[in-house]
Amino acid sequence: MMRQSRFSARCMKLLIGNDDGVFAPGIRALANSLANAGHDVTVVCPDRERSATGHGLTIQQPIRAEKVESIFEPSIQAWACSGTPSDCIKLALGALLDHPPDLVLSGINQGANLGTDVLYSGTVSAAMEGVIEGIPSIAFSLTSFAYHDFSYAAEFAAELVKTLEQKPLPSPLLLNVNIPAYPAEEIQGIKFTRKGIRRYFDMFEKRIDPRGKTYYWLAGEVVEDTEMPPGFEDGEVYMTDVKANRLKYVTITPLQYNLTYFNALETLPEHLNLS
Amino acid sequence: MMRQSRFSARCMKLLIGNDDGVFAPGIRALANSLANAGHDVTVVCPDRERSATGHGLTIQQPIRAEKVESIFEPSIQAWACSGTPSDCIKLALGALLDHPPDLVLSGINQGANLGTDVLYSGTVSAAMEGVIEGIPSIAFSLTSFAYHDFSYAAEFAAELVKTLEQKPLPSPLLLNVNIPAYPAEEIQGIKFTRKGIRRYFDMFEKRIDPRGKTYYWLAGEVVEDTEMPPGFEDGEVYMTDVKANRLKYVTITPLQYNLTYFNALETLPEHLNLS
Repeated sequence: MMRQSRFSARCMKLLIGNDDGVFAPGIRALANSLANAGHDVTVVCPDRERSATGHGLTIQQPIRAEKVESIFEPSIQAWACSGTPSDCIKLALGALLDHPPDLVLSGINQGANLGTDVLYSGTVSAAMEGVIEGIPSIAFSLTSFAYHDFSYAAEFAAELVKTLEQKPLPSPLLLNVNIPAYPAEEIQGIKFTRKGIRRYFDMFEKRIDPRGKTYYWLAGEVVEDTEMPPGFEDGEVYMTDVKANRLKYVTITPLQYNLTYFNALETLPEHLNLS
Repeated sequence: MMRQSRFSARCMKLLIGNDDGVFAPGIRALANSLANAGHDVTVVCPDRERSATGHGLTIQQPIRAEKVESIFEPSIQAWACSGTPSDCIKLALGALLDHPPDLVLSGINQGANLGTDVLYSGTVSAAMEGVIEGIPSIAFSLTSFAYHDFSYAAEFAAELVKTLEQKPLPSPLLLNVNIPAYPAEEIQGIKFTRKGIRRYFDMFEKRIDPRGKTYYWLAGEVVEDTEMPPGFEDGEVYMTDVKANRLKYVTITPLQYNLTYFNALETLPEHLNLS
């Protein structure tokens, strides 16, 4: 039997984006960790923070992409792009890259992308662009705004990519990975989870500007629901990402982008009885 | 037996948003049609076009909302808001309205929101904000950029709201409605559908600016796929919205916002075998 060397696997072509922008420590940790593991890494990410942009696209104006020097490991090709996180991946796949990547990665985001966050998340939307183009993708998030040590998260990312190199995903899907913001020794393990609910209350602060006019600022506290609204009935055997993450597990939630509510599709036509 | 008058149903409280902005003819057609049908209508929509903003939220800066006079029927309260389509509905529910509405409506969008469009659509994202807050919601789109007669679409919307008044939805879900851009007599009827695929090819035009620098502009032709990617395996008994709309049916696709890919959740843990 041949012994497998740790260098025997071919390196993978990885496209990396994010929504925190090119200067964020999370993308540097992710890209450098994977380049150091021998992969062929290209970064195409926003030139500034673009959090909470969802799947926004720039269609009314042009997009610029500038080559970035000396932020990343020398083997990494990097562009900073004036567009949204989704624009960046679209531009990379449609114009900047000569060959499609094996995987699209996004992050490591500073802050959780759990439950309903996913709808608003530029990090997850960037990864979803890969899946829409038929490329398996992973979104990585470190679940705190205040914890800046990305080393465990970056190591975990490199391990997961190595696993996927050896056992490719059976179909192009998105793995939404949330890493608890704790030192490695406190992390309890890995759980495959379903999306939970994470809502925000006390949404808007109403303020008066120096000229006496009203303005509003989106604020709000996180409310993690346990009751499941419509569309969340299935799969109750699986723990939610919200809950597992609170228990200090790394959560991996497979996502797809078909929003059809099939349960409703079965009952609605009779219920509404439209002619 | 009592005969039911056409005025016997109580009027509904409707919140209406869009992504084409306050001056778009589609929202005027929708809001006026429903006000004229006796409903209590409030409009909160962007102060300019905000297409393709997805679920984007404004978090880095304040949001303004200005009262709008003389665009809509006098019974309608209307605000134009500096934020995204999602911001508008969040702001209305969180700050502007005294009472929650019975329904959140969005549109009538100029242009289709079929298949994968839904991910990028400000129109659909605005309606989804209602569902996230537990309020049934409907997104209306007229499937052409070039056809400007919203009269059939607005009548259809009023009819659908009347039906929902008499037969409320069993749970807060989103109805994504696409109305073919044809005169009423050419429309074939109504179909309840699942989401199809609608992709764009030839995505970016590369151009040189007057100063000799490269820029890119998102373009691309629609490609309507018939093959279903992962996450679309279920429910093959239902026609896709893409197909039914091409056959000139009004399509109603029930949507939810749980992106969990349950089929993958069943097989992934064993496949990846992470410790």
